[in-house]
Amino acid sequence: MRKKRIKPDITEIREYQTKTSGLFFVVDGILFRKQSEFQLIEVVENRDYGKILFLDGLVQTTERDEYFYHEMLVHPAFGAHPGPKDVLIIGGGDGGTLREVLRHPVERAVLVEIDPDVIEAAKKYFEWLGPALDDNRAELIVADGIRFAADTDRTFDLVFVDSSEPIGPSSVLHTPEFYLSLRERLNPDGIISSQIGSPFFHAAAIDREHRFLRDIFRIVRLYTGPVPTYPGGTWSYVFLSDTRAPLPALHPPPAGLKYFNPAVHEACFRLNDTEEVKS
Amino acid sequence: MRKKRIKPDITEIREYQTKTSGLFFVVDGILFRKQSEFQLIEVVENRDYGKILFLDGLVQTTERDEYFYHEMLVHPAFGAHPGPKDVLIIGGGDGGTLREVLRHPVERAVLVEIDPDVIEAAKKYFEWLGPALDDNRAELIVADGIRFAADTDRTFDLVFVDSSEPIGPSSVLHTPEFYLSLRERLNPDGIISSQIGSPFFHAAAIDREHRFLRDIFRIVRLYTGPVPTYPGGTWSYVFLSDTRAPLPALHPPPAGLKYFNPAVHEACFRLNDTEEVKS
Repeated sequence: MRKKRIKPDITEIREYQTKTSGLFFVVDGILFRKQSEFQLIEVVENRDYGKILFLDGLVQTTERDEYFYHEMLVHPAFGAHPGPKDVLIIGGGDGGTLREVLRHPVERAVLVEIDPDVIEAAKKYFEWLGPALDDNRAELIVADGIRFAADTDRTFDLVFVDSSEPIGPSSVLHTPEFYLSLRERLNPDGIISSQIGSPFFHAAAIDREHRFLRDIFRIVRLYTGPVPTYPGGTWSYVFLSDTRAPLPALHPPPAGLKYFNPAVHEACFRLNDTEEVKS
Repeated sequence: MRKKRIKPDITEIREYQTKTSGLFFVVDGILFRKQSEFQLIEVVENRDYGKILFLDGLVQTTERDEYFYHEMLVHPAFGAHPGPKDVLIIGGGDGGTLREVLRHPVERAVLVEIDPDVIEAAKKYFEWLGPALDDNRAELIVADGIRFAADTDRTFDLVFVDSSEPIGPSSVLHTPEFYLSLRERLNPDGIISSQIGSPFFHAAAIDREHRFLRDIFRIVRLYTGPVPTYPGGTWSYVFLSDTRAPLPALHPPPAGLKYFNPAVHEACFRLNDTEEVKS
Protein backbone atom coordinates (compact mmCIF):
# COMPACT_ATOMS: atom_id res chain seq x y z
CA MET A 1 0.00 0.00 0.00
CA ARG A 2 1.38 3.41 -0.90
CA LYS A 3 1.82 5.71 2.03
CA LYS A 4 -0.11 8.88 1.57
CA ARG A 5 0.49 11.92 3.71
CA ILE A 6 -2.30 14.44 3.80
CA LYS A 7 -1.09 18.01 3.39
CA PRO A 8 -1.76 20.03 6.53
CA ASP A 9 -4.56 22.55 6.19
CA ILE A 10 -4.29 23.67 9.79
CA THR A 11 -1.23 24.96 11.61
CA GLU A 12 -2.37 24.40 15.15
CA ILE A 13 -4.78 22.32 17.18
CA ARG A 14 -6.02 23.49 20.52
CA GLU A 15 -7.39 21.50 23.34
CA TYR A 16 -9.81 23.83 25.04
CA GLN A 17 -10.05 23.17 28.74
CA THR A 18 -12.70 25.87 28.63
CA LYS A 19 -13.48 28.35 25.86
CA THR A 20 -10.98 30.74 27.42
CA SER A 21 -7.91 28.65 28.25
CA GLY A 22 -6.25 25.41 27.25
CA LEU A 23 -3.35 23.77 25.47
CA PHE A 24 -2.11 24.39 21.95
CA PHE A 25 -0.04 22.21 19.66
CA VAL A 26 1.63 23.45 16.49
CA VAL A 27 0.84 20.89 13.79
CA ASP A 28 3.70 19.61 11.65
CA GLY A 29 1.42 17.39 9.64
CA ILE A 30 -2.06 15.91 9.64
CA LEU A 31 -1.68 12.17 9.25
CA PHE A 32 -5.32 11.15 9.58
CA ARG A 33 -8.61 12.98 9.74
CA LYS A 34 -12.01 11.33 9.53
CA GLN A 35 -15.49 11.97 10.83
CA SER A 36 -16.47 8.46 11.86
CA GLU A 37 -19.92 7.28 12.83
CA PHE A 38 -19.12 8.34 16.39
CA GLN A 39 -16.61 11.18 16.42
CA LEU A 40 -14.02 13.30 14.61
CA ILE A 41 -10.76 11.33 14.60
CA GLU A 42 -7.50 13.20 14.00
CA VAL A 43 -3.90 12.05 14.18
CA VAL A 44 -1.43 14.93 13.88
CA GLU A 45 2.29 15.29 14.28
CA ASN A 46 3.78 17.74 16.78
CA ARG A 47 7.46 18.34 17.45
CA ASP A 48 7.18 17.94 21.23
CA TYR A 49 4.73 15.09 21.62
CA GLY A 50 5.16 13.12 18.39
CA LYS A 51 1.92 11.70 17.00
CA ILE A 52 -1.19 12.87 18.82
CA LEU A 53 -4.65 11.27 18.60
CA PHE A 54 -7.55 13.68 19.06
CA LEU A 55 -11.19 12.58 19.36
CA ASP A 56 -13.62 15.46 18.88
CA GLY A 57 -10.73 17.86 19.53
CA LEU A 58 -9.64 16.31 22.85
CA VAL A 59 -6.19 14.77 23.29
CA GLN A 60 -6.48 11.03 23.87
CA THR A 61 -2.94 9.84 23.34
CA THR A 62 0.41 11.36 22.50
CA GLU A 63 3.47 9.29 21.75
CA ARG A 64 5.57 11.13 24.28
CA ASP A 65 3.37 11.20 27.38
CA GLU A 66 0.76 8.42 26.95
CA TYR A 67 2.63 6.12 29.32
CA PHE A 68 1.59 8.16 32.36
CA TYR A 69 -2.07 7.56 31.67
CA HIS A 70 -1.89 3.95 30.54
CA GLU A 71 0.44 2.81 33.30
CA MET A 72 -1.68 4.52 35.98
CA LEU A 73 -4.93 3.08 34.64
CA VAL A 74 -3.65 -0.50 34.50
CA HIS A 75 -0.97 -1.38 37.05
CA PRO A 76 -2.53 -0.47 40.42
CA ALA A 77 -5.33 -3.02 39.87
CA PHE A 78 -2.85 -5.71 38.79
CA GLY A 79 -0.80 -5.08 41.93
CA ALA A 80 -3.88 -5.60 44.10
CA HIS A 81 -5.31 -8.80 42.55
CA PRO A 82 -3.94 -12.20 43.65
CA GLY A 83 -3.74 -13.69 40.14
CA PRO A 84 -5.69 -12.09 37.32
CA LYS A 85 -6.27 -14.25 34.24
CA ASP A 86 -9.21 -12.70 32.35
CA VAL A 87 -9.18 -9.01 31.60
CA LEU A 88 -11.75 -6.75 29.92
CA ILE A 89 -10.98 -3.32 28.46
CA ILE A 90 -13.93 -1.05 27.58
CA GLY A 91 -12.82 1.61 25.09
CA GLY A 92 -9.11 2.15 24.69
CA GLY A 93 -8.98 1.70 20.93
CA ASP A 94 -5.59 3.39 20.81
CA GLY A 95 -4.17 0.23 22.36
CA GLY A 96 -2.07 1.68 25.18
CA THR A 97 -4.14 -0.01 27.86
CA LEU A 98 -4.01 -3.35 26.03
CA ARG A 99 -0.23 -3.04 25.73
CA GLU A 100 0.10 -2.49 29.50
CA VAL A 101 -2.27 -5.38 30.31
CA LEU A 102 -0.24 -7.76 28.15
CA ARG A 103 2.89 -7.05 30.21
CA HIS A 104 1.27 -9.30 32.82
CA PRO A 105 0.87 -13.10 32.55
CA VAL A 106 -2.85 -12.96 31.76
CA GLU A 107 -4.65 -15.65 29.78
CA ARG A 108 -7.08 -13.40 27.92
CA ALA A 109 -7.40 -9.65 27.29
CA VAL A 110 -10.63 -8.59 25.58
CA LEU A 111 -10.68 -5.11 24.05
CA VAL A 112 -14.21 -3.79 23.37
CA GLU A 113 -13.99 -0.64 21.25
CA ILE A 114 -17.06 0.95 19.69
CA ASP A 115 -15.34 2.74 16.80
CA PRO A 116 -13.49 0.64 14.18
CA ASP A 117 -12.03 3.79 12.65
CA VAL A 118 -10.13 4.51 15.87
CA ILE A 119 -8.62 1.02 15.68
CA GLU A 120 -7.64 1.57 12.05
CA ALA A 121 -6.05 4.95 12.74
CA ALA A 122 -4.20 3.73 15.81
CA LYS A 123 -2.95 0.58 14.08
CA LYS A 124 -1.43 2.71 11.36
CA TYR A 125 0.10 5.43 13.49
CA PHE A 126 0.86 4.02 16.95
CA GLU A 127 3.46 1.30 16.77
CA TRP A 128 2.28 -0.58 19.87
CA LEU A 129 -1.26 -1.46 18.76
CA GLY A 130 -0.43 -3.90 15.95
CA PRO A 131 1.84 -6.12 18.06
CA ALA A 132 -0.64 -5.99 20.96
CA LEU A 133 -3.51 -7.18 18.75
CA ASP A 134 -1.26 -9.88 17.28
CA ASP A 135 -0.62 -11.29 20.76
CA ASN A 136 -2.57 -14.56 20.91
CA ARG A 137 -4.02 -13.60 24.31
CA ALA A 138 -5.69 -10.49 22.82
CA GLU A 139 -9.24 -10.48 21.49
CA LEU A 140 -10.72 -7.46 19.72
CA ILE A 141 -14.49 -6.97 19.77
CA VAL A 142 -15.88 -3.98 17.89
CA ALA A 143 -19.00 -3.20 19.89
CA ASP A 144 -20.70 -0.79 22.21
CA GLY A 145 -19.15 -1.40 25.64
CA ILE A 146 -22.42 -0.81 27.43
CA ARG A 147 -24.25 -3.37 25.31
CA PHE A 148 -21.36 -5.84 25.60
CA ALA A 149 -21.37 -5.60 29.40
CA ALA A 150 -25.14 -6.03 29.51
CA ASP A 151 -25.32 -8.95 27.06
CA THR A 152 -22.25 -11.11 27.65
CA ASP A 153 -22.14 -13.90 30.21
CA ARG A 154 -18.34 -13.89 30.32
CA THR A 155 -16.73 -12.84 33.57
CA PHE A 156 -13.41 -11.14 34.29
CA ASP A 157 -10.86 -10.67 37.05
CA LEU A 158 -10.02 -7.11 36.04
CA VAL A 159 -11.98 -4.55 34.04
CA PHE A 160 -10.50 -1.30 32.74
CA VAL A 161 -12.81 1.50 31.60
CA ASP A 162 -10.68 3.53 29.20
CA SER A 163 -13.33 6.02 28.13
CA SER A 164 -13.18 9.62 26.98
CA GLU A 165 -14.01 12.40 29.39
CA PRO A 166 -17.05 12.28 31.69
CA ILE A 167 -18.68 15.00 29.61
CA GLY A 168 -20.15 14.64 26.10
CA PRO A 169 -20.62 11.33 24.25
CA SER A 170 -18.79 9.21 26.83
CA SER A 171 -21.05 10.35 29.65
CA VAL A 172 -23.03 7.08 29.38
CA LEU A 173 -19.88 5.34 30.65
CA HIS A 174 -20.13 7.39 33.83
CA THR A 175 -23.54 6.19 35.10
CA PRO A 176 -24.63 3.87 37.95
CA GLU A 177 -26.38 1.59 35.42
CA PHE A 178 -23.13 0.92 33.57
CA TYR A 179 -21.19 0.16 36.75
CA LEU A 180 -23.97 -2.09 38.07
CA SER A 181 -23.76 -4.12 34.88
CA LEU A 182 -19.94 -4.20 35.00
CA ARG A 183 -20.07 -5.42 38.59
CA GLU A 184 -22.09 -8.42 37.38
CA ARG A 185 -19.19 -9.30 35.10
CA LEU A 186 -16.63 -9.54 37.90
CA ASN A 187 -15.23 -12.82 39.20
CA PRO A 188 -14.76 -13.08 42.98
CA ASP A 189 -11.86 -10.75 43.91
CA GLY A 190 -12.58 -8.73 40.77
CA ILE A 191 -11.42 -5.14 40.41
CA ILE A 192 -12.48 -2.34 38.05
CA SER A 193 -10.30 0.68 37.30
CA SER A 194 -11.65 3.68 35.40
CA GLN A 195 -10.40 7.09 34.42
CA ILE A 196 -12.73 9.72 35.79
CA GLY A 197 -11.39 13.05 34.60
CA SER A 198 -9.50 16.07 35.87
CA PRO A 199 -9.64 16.75 39.61
CA PHE A 200 -9.34 20.43 38.75
CA PHE A 201 -11.77 20.84 35.84
CA HIS A 202 -14.25 18.01 36.46
CA ALA A 203 -14.49 18.12 40.25
CA ALA A 204 -18.29 18.22 40.28
CA ALA A 205 -18.58 15.23 37.90
CA ILE A 206 -16.01 13.26 39.88
CA ASP A 207 -17.82 14.03 43.11
CA ARG A 208 -21.12 12.84 41.64
CA GLU A 209 -19.53 9.66 40.27
CA HIS A 210 -17.72 8.97 43.53
CA ARG A 211 -21.01 9.17 45.44
CA PHE A 212 -22.90 6.70 43.28
CA LEU A 213 -19.91 4.33 43.09
CA ARG A 214 -19.88 4.15 46.88
CA ASP A 215 -23.43 2.88 46.75
CA ILE A 216 -22.40 0.10 44.35
CA PHE A 217 -18.97 -1.09 45.53
CA ARG A 218 -17.65 -1.77 48.99
CA ILE A 219 -14.19 -0.41 48.15
CA VAL A 220 -13.97 2.84 46.15
CA ARG A 221 -10.59 4.53 46.06
CA LEU A 222 -9.73 7.59 44.01
CA TYR A 223 -6.18 8.02 42.80
CA THR A 224 -4.30 10.54 40.69
CA GLY A 225 -1.27 10.89 38.46
CA PRO A 226 0.28 13.36 36.03
CA VAL A 227 -0.59 13.50 32.32
CA PRO A 228 1.03 16.62 30.83
CA THR A 229 -1.33 16.87 27.83
CA TYR A 230 -4.60 16.32 29.70
CA PRO A 231 -6.40 19.42 31.06
CA GLY A 232 -4.71 20.67 34.22
CA GLY A 233 -1.89 18.14 33.92
CA THR A 234 -3.22 15.78 36.63
CA TRP A 235 -5.71 12.98 36.02
CA SER A 236 -8.04 11.01 38.32
CA TYR A 237 -8.80 7.33 38.33
CA VAL A 238 -10.95 5.15 40.53
CA PHE A 239 -10.27 1.66 41.90
CA LEU A 240 -13.44 -0.38 42.56
CA SER A 241 -13.88 -3.73 44.25
CA ASP A 242 -16.01 -5.57 46.76
CA THR A 243 -13.13 -7.52 48.26
CA ARG A 244 -9.74 -6.15 47.29
CA ALA A 245 -8.06 -3.00 48.64
CA PRO A 246 -5.34 -1.35 46.55
CA LEU A 247 -2.78 -1.44 49.35
CA PRO A 248 -0.58 -3.12 50.28
CA ALA A 249 0.39 -4.29 46.79
CA LEU A 250 0.59 -8.07 46.41
CA HIS A 251 3.09 -8.00 43.53
CA PRO A 252 5.67 -5.54 42.21
CA PRO A 253 4.84 -4.01 38.83
CA PRO A 254 6.26 -5.59 35.66
CA ALA A 255 9.66 -4.51 34.35
CA GLY A 256 10.03 -1.87 31.66
CA LEU A 257 7.63 0.80 32.92
CA LYS A 258 8.44 4.48 32.57
CA TYR A 259 6.49 6.01 35.44
CA PHE A 260 4.67 3.55 37.69
CA ASN A 261 6.67 1.92 40.47
CA PRO A 262 5.98 0.62 44.01
CA ALA A 263 6.39 4.09 45.53
CA VAL A 264 3.90 5.56 43.05
CA HIS A 265 1.49 2.74 43.85
CA GLU A 266 1.55 3.73 47.50
CA ALA A 267 1.53 7.47 46.96
CA CYS A 268 -1.11 7.81 44.26
CA PHE A 269 -3.96 6.73 46.52
CA ARG A 270 -3.03 9.12 49.29
CA LEU A 271 -3.34 12.37 47.38
CA ASN A 272 -7.13 12.22 47.35
CA ASP A 273 -7.39 10.44 50.60
CA THR A 274 -8.28 13.07 53.13
CA GLU A 275 -10.94 10.77 54.59
CA GLU A 276 -8.50 8.08 55.54
CA VAL A 277 -6.25 10.65 57.15
CA LYS A 278 -9.10 12.22 59.08
CA SER A 279 -10.33 8.91 60.44
CA MET B 1 -6.15 57.46 43.69
CA ARG B 2 -8.25 56.94 40.59
CA LYS B 3 -8.28 53.43 39.30
CA LYS B 4 -7.13 53.26 35.75
CA ARG B 5 -7.74 50.21 33.61
CA ILE B 6 -5.53 49.85 30.59
CA LYS B 7 -7.47 48.92 27.48
CA PRO B 8 -6.50 45.46 26.24
CA ASP B 9 -4.34 45.52 23.14
CA ILE B 10 -3.94 41.75 23.10
CA THR B 11 -6.62 39.11 23.13
CA GLU B 12 -4.55 36.19 24.30
CA ILE B 13 -1.35 35.40 26.15
CA ARG B 14 0.44 32.14 25.60
CA GLU B 15 2.84 30.39 27.85
CA TYR B 16 5.12 28.55 25.50
CA GLN B 17 6.39 25.34 27.01
CA THR B 18 8.37 25.08 23.82
CA LYS B 19 7.99 27.01 20.57
CA THR B 20 5.53 24.36 19.41
CA SER B 21 3.23 23.68 22.36
CA GLY B 22 2.01 25.31 25.53
CA LEU B 23 -0.89 26.94 27.32
CA PHE B 24 -3.06 29.80 26.14
CA PHE B 25 -5.22 32.22 28.10
CA VAL B 26 -7.84 34.48 26.52
CA VAL B 27 -7.29 37.94 28.00
CA ASP B 28 -10.33 39.81 29.35
CA GLY B 29 -8.24 42.80 30.34
CA ILE B 30 -4.65 43.89 30.84
CA LEU B 31 -4.42 45.35 34.33
CA PHE B 32 -0.69 46.05 34.43
CA ARG B 33 2.15 45.94 31.95
CA LYS B 34 5.63 47.28 32.58
CA GLN B 35 9.14 46.52 31.45
CA SER B 36 10.98 46.83 34.77
CA GLU B 37 14.72 46.93 35.23
CA PHE B 38 14.65 43.15 35.37
CA GLN B 39 11.74 41.75 33.37
CA LEU B 40 8.44 42.31 31.58
CA ILE B 41 5.71 42.31 34.24
CA GLU B 42 2.11 41.70 33.15
CA VAL B 43 -1.05 41.21 35.17
CA VAL B 44 -4.00 40.13 33.02
CA GLU B 45 -7.51 38.95 33.72
CA ASN B 46 -8.75 35.59 32.47
CA ARG B 47 -12.18 34.09 33.01
CA ASP B 48 -10.89 30.75 34.30
CA TYR B 49 -7.94 31.73 36.44
CA GLY B 50 -8.79 35.28 37.54
CA LYS B 51 -5.81 37.61 37.69
CA ILE B 52 -2.62 36.14 36.30
CA LEU B 53 0.92 37.47 36.85
CA PHE B 54 3.34 36.83 34.01
CA LEU B 55 7.08 37.57 34.21
CA ASP B 56 8.73 37.58 30.78
CA GLY B 57 5.72 35.70 29.44
CA LEU B 58 5.79 32.89 32.02
CA VAL B 59 2.91 32.30 34.43
CA GLN B 60 4.04 32.97 37.99
CA THR B 61 0.75 33.17 39.86
CA THR B 62 -2.93 32.88 39.06
CA GLU B 63 -5.64 33.65 41.56
CA ARG B 64 -7.33 30.33 41.02
CA ASP B 65 -4.46 27.83 41.22
CA GLU B 66 -1.59 29.57 43.05
CA TYR B 67 -2.33 27.73 46.29
CA PHE B 68 -0.95 24.45 44.91
CA TYR B 69 2.47 25.96 44.38
CA HIS B 70 2.68 28.11 47.50
CA GLU B 71 1.38 25.44 49.86
CA MET B 72 3.75 22.82 48.44
CA LEU B 73 6.76 25.11 48.60
CA VAL B 74 6.17 26.12 52.22
CA HIS B 75 4.43 23.52 54.40
CA PRO B 76 6.60 20.39 54.02
CA ALA B 77 9.58 22.21 55.54
CA PHE B 78 7.47 23.58 58.40
CA GLY B 79 6.19 20.08 59.15
CA ALA B 80 9.76 18.80 59.42
CA HIS B 81 11.32 21.51 61.64
CA PRO B 82 10.93 21.27 65.45
CA GLY B 83 10.11 24.97 65.97
CA PRO B 84 10.97 27.47 63.23
CA LYS B 85 11.14 31.12 64.32
CA ASP B 86 13.15 32.95 61.66
CA VAL B 87 12.27 32.49 58.01
CA LEU B 88 13.87 33.84 54.83
CA ILE B 89 12.14 33.99 51.45
CA ILE B 90 14.28 34.67 48.36
CA GLY B 91 12.12 35.95 45.50
CA GLY B 92 8.38 35.46 45.84
CA GLY B 93 7.41 39.09 45.31
CA ASP B 94 3.83 38.04 44.56
CA GLY B 95 3.46 37.31 48.26
CA GLY B 96 1.90 33.83 48.18
CA THR B 97 4.88 32.25 49.92
CA LEU B 98 4.91 34.98 52.59
CA ARG B 99 1.18 34.46 53.19
CA GLU B 100 1.72 30.71 53.72
CA VAL B 101 4.73 31.29 56.03
CA LEU B 102 2.69 33.67 58.20
CA ARG B 103 0.09 30.94 58.86
CA HIS B 104 2.71 29.49 61.23
CA PRO B 105 3.73 31.00 64.60
CA VAL B 106 7.04 32.39 63.32
CA GLU B 107 8.75 35.42 64.87
CA ARG B 108 10.15 36.92 61.69
CA ALA B 109 9.61 36.39 57.95
CA VAL B 110 12.05 38.25 55.70
CA LEU B 111 11.08 38.60 52.04
CA VAL B 112 14.00 39.49 49.75
CA GLU B 113 12.68 40.45 46.31
CA ILE B 114 14.90 41.98 43.64
CA ASP B 115 12.20 43.79 41.66
CA PRO B 116 10.18 46.54 43.42
CA ASP B 117 7.82 46.72 40.45
CA VAL B 118 6.69 43.14 41.08
CA ILE B 119 5.85 44.11 44.67
CA GLU B 120 3.91 47.15 43.44
CA ALA B 121 1.93 45.17 40.88
CA ALA B 122 1.18 42.33 43.27
CA LYS B 123 0.14 44.68 46.08
CA LYS B 124 -2.39 46.29 43.77
CA TYR B 125 -3.80 43.16 42.18
CA PHE B 126 -3.38 40.23 44.58
CA GLU B 127 -5.39 40.77 47.72
CA TRP B 128 -3.14 38.69 49.99
CA LEU B 129 0.11 40.66 49.63
CA GLY B 130 -0.94 43.89 51.38
CA PRO B 131 -2.14 42.18 54.58
CA ALA B 132 0.91 39.88 54.59
CA LEU B 133 3.31 42.84 54.39
CA ASP B 134 1.31 44.65 57.10
CA ASP B 135 1.84 41.71 59.48
CA ASN B 136 4.34 42.95 62.06
CA ARG B 137 6.38 39.75 61.69
CA ALA B 138 7.01 40.48 57.99
CA GLU B 139 10.05 42.39 56.74
CA LEU B 140 10.45 43.36 53.10
CA ILE B 141 13.94 43.89 51.69
CA VAL B 142 14.22 44.97 48.07
CA ALA B 143 17.56 43.45 47.09
CA ASP B 144 19.31 40.85 45.01
CA GLY B 145 18.82 37.56 46.88
CA ILE B 146 22.26 36.31 45.97
CA ARG B 147 23.94 39.41 47.32
CA PHE B 148 21.72 39.38 50.43
CA ALA B 149 22.65 35.78 51.21
CA ALA B 150 26.34 36.51 50.69
CA ASP B 151 26.44 39.75 52.73
CA THR B 152 24.08 39.30 55.68
CA ASP B 153 25.13 37.75 58.96
CA ARG B 154 21.55 36.93 59.95
CA THR B 155 20.62 33.27 60.20
CA PHE B 156 17.36 31.44 59.64
CA ASP B 157 15.54 28.25 60.55
CA LEU B 158 13.83 27.93 57.19
CA VAL B 159 14.72 29.37 53.79
CA PHE B 160 12.38 29.28 50.78
CA VAL B 161 13.77 29.91 47.31
CA ASP B 162 10.76 31.12 45.33
CA SER B 163 12.54 31.85 42.07
CA SER B 164 11.42 31.77 38.46
CA GLU B 165 12.31 28.81 36.28
CA PRO B 166 15.80 27.27 36.23
CA ILE B 167 16.31 28.67 32.74
CA GLY B 168 16.88 32.31 31.78
CA PRO B 169 17.50 35.17 34.26
CA SER B 170 16.81 33.08 37.38
CA SER B 171 19.45 30.52 36.46
CA VAL B 172 21.87 32.17 38.95
CA LEU B 173 19.54 30.93 41.70
CA HIS B 174 20.19 27.38 40.54
CA THR B 175 23.96 27.19 41.14
CA PRO B 176 26.16 25.47 43.77
CA GLU B 177 27.59 28.87 44.80
CA PHE B 178 24.17 30.20 45.75
CA TYR B 179 23.28 27.11 47.79
CA LEU B 180 26.67 27.11 49.53
CA SER B 181 26.04 30.66 50.64
CA LEU B 182 22.45 29.87 51.72
CA ARG B 183 23.72 26.92 53.76
CA GLU B 184 25.88 29.35 55.75
CA ARG B 185 22.73 31.23 56.70
CA LEU B 186 21.03 28.20 58.28
CA ASN B 187 20.64 27.74 62.04
CA PRO B 188 21.19 24.19 63.38
CA ASP B 189 18.23 22.08 62.18
CA GLY B 190 17.76 24.51 59.31
CA ILE B 191 15.90 23.51 56.13
CA ILE B 192 15.80 25.03 52.65
CA SER B 193 12.98 24.39 50.18
CA SER B 194 13.22 25.49 46.56
CA GLN B 195 11.15 25.11 43.45
CA ILE B 196 13.22 23.44 40.76
CA GLY B 197 11.03 23.26 37.68
CA SER B 198 8.99 20.80 35.66
CA PRO B 199 9.94 17.12 35.96
CA PHE B 200 8.75 16.73 32.39
CA PHE B 201 10.26 19.76 30.64
CA HIS B 202 13.29 20.53 32.81
CA ALA B 203 14.46 17.02 33.64
CA ALA B 204 18.06 17.67 32.60
CA ALA B 205 18.29 20.88 34.68
CA ILE B 206 16.72 19.15 37.69
CA ASP B 207 19.12 16.25 37.37
CA ARG B 208 22.10 18.61 37.25
CA GLU B 209 20.81 20.56 40.25
CA HIS B 210 20.06 17.40 42.20
CA ARG B 211 23.63 16.19 41.70
CA PHE B 212 25.34 19.31 42.97
CA LEU B 213 22.88 19.65 45.87
CA ARG B 214 23.84 16.17 47.05
CA ASP B 215 27.42 17.36 47.28
CA ILE B 216 26.36 20.25 49.52
CA PHE B 217 23.62 18.89 51.80
CA ARG B 218 23.36 15.61 53.67
CA ILE B 219 19.61 15.34 53.05
CA VAL B 220 18.30 16.14 49.56
CA ARG B 221 14.73 15.07 48.81
CA LEU B 222 12.84 15.88 45.63
CA TYR B 223 9.08 16.21 45.80
CA THR B 224 6.30 17.06 43.39
CA GLY B 225 2.80 18.45 43.25
CA PRO B 226 0.25 19.66 40.70
CA VAL B 227 0.11 23.23 39.38
CA PRO B 228 -2.38 23.35 36.49
CA THR B 229 -0.94 26.52 34.89
CA TYR B 230 2.73 25.55 35.06
CA PRO B 231 4.21 23.66 32.07
CA GLY B 232 3.18 20.01 32.16
CA GLY B 233 0.89 20.54 35.15
CA THR B 234 3.28 19.00 37.71
CA TRP B 235 6.01 20.91 39.54
CA SER B 236 9.16 19.80 41.38
CA TYR B 237 10.57 21.09 44.63
CA VAL B 238 13.59 20.12 46.69
CA PHE B 239 13.92 19.79 50.47
CA LEU B 240 17.47 20.39 51.75
CA SER B 241 18.94 19.94 55.21
CA ASP B 242 21.94 18.58 57.04
CA THR B 243 19.95 17.24 59.98
CA ARG B 244 16.22 17.08 59.29
CA ALA B 245 14.37 14.55 57.14
CA PRO B 246 10.98 15.47 55.72
CA LEU B 247 9.26 12.41 57.18
CA PRO B 248 7.72 11.64 59.54
CA ALA B 249 6.14 15.09 59.96
CA LEU B 250 6.56 16.58 63.45
CA HIS B 251 3.44 18.76 63.26
CA PRO B 252 0.20 18.76 61.27
CA PRO B 253 -0.15 21.59 58.74
CA PRO B 254 -1.99 24.76 59.76
CA ALA B 255 -5.76 25.01 59.27
CA GLY B 256 -7.28 26.65 56.21
CA LEU B 257 -5.18 25.08 53.45
CA LYS B 258 -6.73 24.12 50.13
CA TYR B 259 -4.44 21.32 48.94
CA PHE B 260 -1.69 20.34 51.36
CA ASN B 261 -2.59 17.87 54.12
CA PRO B 262 -0.78 15.11 56.07
CA ALA B 263 -1.43 12.54 53.32
CA VAL B 264 0.03 14.86 50.69
CA HIS B 265 3.04 15.44 52.93
CA GLU B 266 3.72 11.72 52.97
CA ALA B 267 2.91 11.07 49.33
CA CYS B 268 4.68 13.97 47.66
CA PHE B 269 8.16 12.72 48.54
CA ARG B 270 7.51 9.24 47.28
CA LEU B 271 6.72 10.05 43.68
CA ASN B 272 10.34 10.82 42.88
CA ASP B 273 11.74 8.37 45.32
CA THR B 274 12.73 5.38 43.28
CA GLU B 275 16.04 5.19 45.12
CA GLU B 276 14.43 4.70 48.49
CA VAL B 277 12.24 1.97 47.07
CA LYS B 278 15.14 0.19 45.42
CA SER B 279 17.26 0.16 48.55
